[in-house]
Amino acid sequence: MRIMGIDPGIAIVGFSVIELQGNHLKALDYGSIQTEPKYTTAERLKQIYDACTSLLRQYQPQVMAIEKLFFNRNVTTAFAVGQARGVIMLAGEEAGVEIREYTPLQVKMAVVGYGQAEKKQVQEMVKLLLSLPKVPKPDDVADALAIAICDAHSSQVNRGGGRVRP
Amino acid sequence: MRIMGIDPGIAIVGFSVIELQGNHLKALDYGSIQTEPKYTTAERLKQIYDACTSLLRQYQPQVMAIEKLFFNRNVTTAFAVGQARGVIMLAGEEAGVEIREYTPLQVKMAVVGYGQAEKKQVQEMVKLLLSLPKVPKPDDVADALAIAICDAHSSQVNRGGGRVRP
Repeated sequence: MRIMGIDPGIAIVGFSVIELQGNHLKALDYGSIQTEPKYTTAERLKQIYDACTSLLRQYQPQVMAIEKLFFNRNVTTAFAVGQARGVIMLAGEEAGVEIREYTPLQVKMAVVGYGQAEKKQVQEMVKLLLSLPKVPKPDDVADALAIAICDAHSSQVNRGGGRVRP
Repeated sequence: MRIMGIDPGIAIVGFSVIELQGNHLKALDYGSIQTEPKYTTAERLKQIYDACTSLLRQYQPQVMAIEKLFFNRNVTTAFAVGQARGVIMLAGEEAGVEIREYTPLQVKMAVVGYGQAEKKQVQEMVKLLLSLPKVPKPDDVADALAIAICDAHSSQVNRGGGRVRP
């Protein structure tokens, strides 16, 4: 099963594509889509939408895993992130992928096994589980990988499998 | 000049298409795009995007006028409205229209001439300025007309014209 993980934003979208083979995870690609403030919001949204559509075509994932509404940010941030999330989910819907949403708590539980885990712990586990040479930067990329791992783990659990192993 | 006015939302999007001919305004079309909660968020966003794209093709407006970020709502609402706004702006960007944003204060000032105007006053002025038989319902449709009028008025002012007259 191939999963695309997304950490949405207007200036930077973290993305990842991982593959679950049996109990093993492999990172096929990860990185960020960045847009510059010199463009209008509509132009930046189109850049994000086009980049996501292109990634979806290239990797043909079955699932898009994306962070669920967070309540701990302010209204302005929520609005901006919401706009980006809207066009990303649209790209996913048009590509026919299943879109699954996870809370930050679910991601931490799935990746570290502990809901109060620090960001740094999550990032170290991402590195370990995917056998990466180092922690991916910026944080948005590591977050996109963590969300994809969370989905892979949930799929394993639903199929009666154990925890994903490195 | 032809202007599309949009009041974004996930369950209901108010839309309007008005034409500014000299100092006179004419409503070409107005109504709402409604989506049902039985669909996933991604499906609803696609329904909104498709409907907007279709309206843009049909009416070929030069401008899309849309409400700017409001600070008086909660984070959950801002997030949901942001998602819908994202796909609507994407549709506008793809159609090559100019996207202009207005605050609720600007809309009230342009339509009623008074920033503290009540919703009812705005709606009565919308009806009057566009010579409509009655106040359009629901509120989202009247709001979409008010935003389009606001843009028409701003264009008039920028061109040195007076207030838009019924």
